[in-house]
Amino acid sequence: MNYSMIFYIIGWILVVEAALMVPSGVVAIIYGESCGWVFAVTILLCLVLGLPLIRRQPENKVFYFKEGAVIVALSWLIMSIMGAVPFVLSGAIPHPVDALFETVSGFTTTGSSILASVEELPYCILFWRSFTHWIGGMGVLVFILCLLPLTGSGYHMNLMKAESPGPSVSKLVPKVRATAKMLYGLYIFLTILQLVLLLLGSMPLFDALCVTFGSAGTGGFGIKNDSMGSYTTYQQAVTTIFMILFGVNFNVYFLLYMKKPKEAFRCEEARWYLTIIAVSTLIITFFIRDSFDSIAMAFHHAAFQVGTIITTTGFATTDFNLWPAVPKTILVILMLVGACAGSTGGGIKVSRIVILFKSVLLEMRRNLHPNVVQRVNFEGHPVEKNTLRSVLIFLAAYSFIFAFSTLLISVDNYDLTTNFTAVAATLNNIGPGLEMVGPTQNFGHFSTFSKLVLTFDMLAGRLEIFPLLLLFHRDTWRRF
Amino acid sequence: MNYSMIFYIIGWILVVEAALMVPSGVVAIIYGESCGWVFAVTILLCLVLGLPLIRRQPENKVFYFKEGAVIVALSWLIMSIMGAVPFVLSGAIPHPVDALFETVSGFTTTGSSILASVEELPYCILFWRSFTHWIGGMGVLVFILCLLPLTGSGYHMNLMKAESPGPSVSKLVPKVRATAKMLYGLYIFLTILQLVLLLLGSMPLFDALCVTFGSAGTGGFGIKNDSMGSYTTYQQAVTTIFMILFGVNFNVYFLLYMKKPKEAFRCEEARWYLTIIAVSTLIITFFIRDSFDSIAMAFHHAAFQVGTIITTTGFATTDFNLWPAVPKTILVILMLVGACAGSTGGGIKVSRIVILFKSVLLEMRRNLHPNVVQRVNFEGHPVEKNTLRSVLIFLAAYSFIFAFSTLLISVDNYDLTTNFTAVAATLNNIGPGLEMVGPTQNFGHFSTFSKLVLTFDMLAGRLEIFPLLLLFHRDTWRRF
Repeated sequence: MNYSMIFYIIGWILVVEAALMVPSGVVAIIYGESCGWVFAVTILLCLVLGLPLIRRQPENKVFYFKEGAVIVALSWLIMSIMGAVPFVLSGAIPHPVDALFETVSGFTTTGSSILASVEELPYCILFWRSFTHWIGGMGVLVFILCLLPLTGSGYHMNLMKAESPGPSVSKLVPKVRATAKMLYGLYIFLTILQLVLLLLGSMPLFDALCVTFGSAGTGGFGIKNDSMGSYTTYQQAVTTIFMILFGVNFNVYFLLYMKKPKEAFRCEEARWYLTIIAVSTLIITFFIRDSFDSIAMAFHHAAFQVGTIITTTGFATTDFNLWPAVPKTILVILMLVGACAGSTGGGIKVSRIVILFKSVLLEMRRNLHPNVVQRVNFEGHPVEKNTLRSVLIFLAAYSFIFAFSTLLISVDNYDLTTNFTAVAATLNNIGPGLEMVGPTQNFGHFSTFSKLVLTFDMLAGRLEIFPLLLLFHRDTWRRF
Repeated sequence: MNYSMIFYIIGWILVVEAALMVPSGVVAIIYGESCGWVFAVTILLCLVLGLPLIRRQPENKVFYFKEGAVIVALSWLIMSIMGAVPFVLSGAIPHPVDALFETVSGFTTTGSSILASVEELPYCILFWRSFTHWIGGMGVLVFILCLLPLTGSGYHMNLMKAESPGPSVSKLVPKVRATAKMLYGLYIFLTILQLVLLLLGSMPLFDALCVTFGSAGTGGFGIKNDSMGSYTTYQQAVTTIFMILFGVNFNVYFLLYMKKPKEAFRCEEARWYLTIIAVSTLIITFFIRDSFDSIAMAFHHAAFQVGTIITTTGFATTDFNLWPAVPKTILVILMLVGACAGSTGGGIKVSRIVILFKSVLLEMRRNLHPNVVQRVNFEGHPVEKNTLRSVLIFLAAYSFIFAFSTLLISVDNYDLTTNFTAVAATLNNIGPGLEMVGPTQNFGHFSTFSKLVLTFDMLAGRLEIFPLLLLFHRDTWRRF
């Protein structure tokens, strides 16, 4: 285990986090909020801890997937702990476990909140809360990759593999650093586009910023108690479209940027993803048509809710907990499916589901023609055996964590739907579930123990399980 | 596709089913029930349809896994349709879809019922209803294997593979026919043992027969409206023990019979299975200790419910729908786990769960040591790649059917827990679920459409998905 490298990168994480807190401090100054001092203190704390660690580059720069996984898992933990400090110090969320839950929920772009009411929070705290989504969406380590002059792209790759969602990481361009820069460029471009469109719809700047952060990271923290319910139809529609856009595999945008629209259009995962959204929206519109004034409004709300759930954003315009069983079941299934790999969305990912589905079909063909030699094809290429195995094993690990978490939080003695959807909502980084964690409810009523379990689930979901699990494996910490 | 072989075996199925209806007719005569004529008519019908098909053996005896799967799936369908006739003709269950649901529930040893009350049914009908469990437990095709002088054990193997539960079929002795006979011998021996023990506890003969059929097949149809609630503690305890025994891999009994207790004790699946039962029972006892007069009674009911759910029997002594969340969650998880492969129980099977769990652990080790060459070990041997792949793909197919079925039955607009556990209870061949399909409820209130979906799930669960799915694959019916 290359400890010096781990400490070096954690140092950078702390310094970068200090820098990322500056805008929240600026917000405090603009609004003349006295609680702005908490950001000054936290920034100082990050620098005091971080700067000594980055004073000199470690000589041993070798690190393997193991180091990559450990760095990613530890970075996310430390980032979350430091990110929780302003909440505690300002008194917005006095209990440390609650603050940690809220911060992890922010960075992992989950959007589950322990707060019953957010409207009385200071602007600077609301800004920081929403900004964590934007930071977590693309991943702070990918960001650091853009900055750090680490040699050897193989090492970069090991970091990126551990942090990026999806069954396999494709480099857009041969160099990992260039890929990371490209990703951030596209991310910033789409963010600004949404911001401008919301401002054109006469949304106040502060609201537009927070809503955009929430959509870009597919996070879902709102700054109103009714989430997005009180915004205009135009503003909701823009948000619907951008949530869905941020859930698309960023490869598509890269190909469009490279003026290869034909290749972009051929992206199999994105086509499945958009098809699932279209079909789900139409079915739900049919079932809720009588709850709204017109079919158009039913469609509008169906599309918003499908977009917010499949991309695992978690904004809400209406209380879908009151909808009939079919729409609710579809939303629960979409919770599990999630968005595209290589997007900011969470969940199992469309590509994994498609690969699994094709494997089942292939298994049927194998039963019929025992001598058939065939592979599952995805995105025009046969899926490698190792990828298929890791997709399948991901599903298994996911199921075990799901079952075990549900069991652990059932100690609080809530009903099964609450427990089941609370785990689904956190493990898939969605935000709201059903019943007692429905879109108009919150997670504050859970016990401290359950909150820690759900915090673990949010991190496991964002880091796709294995990096986090490796932290608990004995061999990880053994020198050899 | 070897059609002549398919028709030949289906002919045998019909003839054997006619023979298996004789005891129910005898019950009608003993109790002087006038509705006994329905069995005479059904027996005649089976013979009229079946005898012409078995007049001569087909010349082409070649059949592959494909034929095996189709024969098994069709046999179970036809058996169920003919088995439903007495229910419809006698007026006990007038609606054909209800009768089919009940019969499939019987043969697949599910035990979900559409009947709100069973106590007013004629004895002969109750006997047939319980007897279907006993027939379905071991599988009627395995039974026919004992009788039919088909040449070529490879062909036998393809039948047995398709009908027997579990990731891989082990032949106890080199010849498949001998294995099938051995299995039935052990099955009959255990059945008689339970019957005798229940009679010693002064249970009436008719009750003892029906309870034994239900436990042996791990089915769960009761002949009382409160299932097993009104029987004595001794009678319940005997049933607990035998349900658990019938959920053990029959290899263990074979090894004991061969006087190899050491090997029997080493059976990994059975040890995991018994450990899971012990741990779950103790935890549940702790959580329900205050609901009963003594810890001993809490333990008694916990053990009964754990035994009935993990073996997917589905008898009940108490309404566990009223228990706290932890016991309920444990029971739902046990529903999914199921019993041992090579037993009469359903579910995903302990061996699959253990193999999956070990795969996840191995994947972690692979991440840490990329060059490690290691396989998952089970029952002292490395698991073959093909077995592992089919276990993982089974889990995927299972998840798809689970999600899709839940979606389909949600059209009836019940709550999510009802829908989720209704599918869990049928797909795993358990019987009762929670809420509106809880142990004191029934499946009668579902729409005809949902009943057909759940009937499909029961068959898919018993035949472990693929044989049934193959019926719907185009290539299955193509000649080439």
